[in-house]
Amino acid sequence: MSQSKPDRILGIDPGLNITGYGVIEITGGARGKFSLVEAGVIRSTPKTSLTARVHEIHQGIVEVIESTNPTSMAIEELYSHYERPRTAILMGHARGVLILAGATAKIPVKHYAATRIKKMLTGNGRAPKSQMQSSIQREFGLDEIPAPADVADALAIALCHYYLRDTAKNVSLTPTAPKRRKKRSHRTAS
Amino acid sequence: MSQSKPDRILGIDPGLNITGYGVIEITGGARGKFSLVEAGVIRSTPKTSLTARVHEIHQGIVEVIESTNPTSMAIEELYSHYERPRTAILMGHARGVLILAGATAKIPVKHYAATRIKKMLTGNGRAPKSQMQSSIQREFGLDEIPAPADVADALAIALCHYYLRDTAKNVSLTPTAPKRRKKRSHRTAS
Repeated sequence: MSQSKPDRILGIDPGLNITGYGVIEITGGARGKFSLVEAGVIRSTPKTSLTARVHEIHQGIVEVIESTNPTSMAIEELYSHYERPRTAILMGHARGVLILAGATAKIPVKHYAATRIKKMLTGNGRAPKSQMQSSIQREFGLDEIPAPADVADALAIALCHYYLRDTAKNVSLTPTAPKRRKKRSHRTAS
Repeated sequence: MSQSKPDRILGIDPGLNITGYGVIEITGGARGKFSLVEAGVIRSTPKTSLTARVHEIHQGIVEVIESTNPTSMAIEELYSHYERPRTAILMGHARGVLILAGATAKIPVKHYAATRIKKMLTGNGRAPKSQMQSSIQREFGLDEIPAPADVADALAIALCHYYLRDTAKNVSLTPTAPKRRKKRSHRTAS
């Protein structure tokens, strides 16, 4: 790739069953600042082993990266308040192999809280899925509601990153949440 | 590799900060049924991004697999009862990229609960780290206590898999826990 490699953001809504992804291209100019390159879902096969499933998810996102050539990745942070800790652990597995694919492809990876993404797009940090889908349909001028909701969420994450990655051009639709202290959030007891 | 590829088990004690690993070779015969091939730890760099850390962990285990050629992998299951859900999620990231390395190398991956491993080796499902280290020292006839504890735990997991992988030759030192229902444990809501 030359210096003219297009500026593309890969947004990811991680999940062990369904991972939504959406690639947008930043085209510049007063209007049509971004366009949709490709969006879809990666599904893992239910009732297979966890090992087989993380392999499927990883293979899926590697293929997306290879075919769309994103220059950055934005991914939704996992909630810390799952009803079942087991669910949180399993989701962590999926998220781990997704960000690994970014690292392997040497793409910078940024993390955004779901509430921040929702607030930026709809003004409501607790916006329901249908509202997120409507917002994404409007933002991209789509003929149909993007479905499943994981696709809309992935595109929302990509848009969120576009608006927030450079504070100098922070043109968010609504006031943004305070900056998270990344370093602290990455610390853990092993 | 020919059909005479040695029977080697890679045991893994997963962690975001420190991942212990131990490779044992099953040599057969009445005595000296297993021997230590290699053991150590993979450390990720603190205060770097989560993405960089999962990449380091993945690279580390891939190197271990390439240099020791294990034929199976056994890994400790994560507890579902962390004090902080955030810790569980982060640990899940590390575990995800570890089992991915097994899948990519086409090595079967088995999961064992920590309590089961401890009970098999010491008769006590809540054995402290020091007791596990002593047991492993004795089992392998080591001159010194294996350290850090993550190394002893990884070797314990490898041994556990050796004893349990074929119920026909279940020669566990203590009665084993009831079989876990693997398929159910892998199901999750996304």
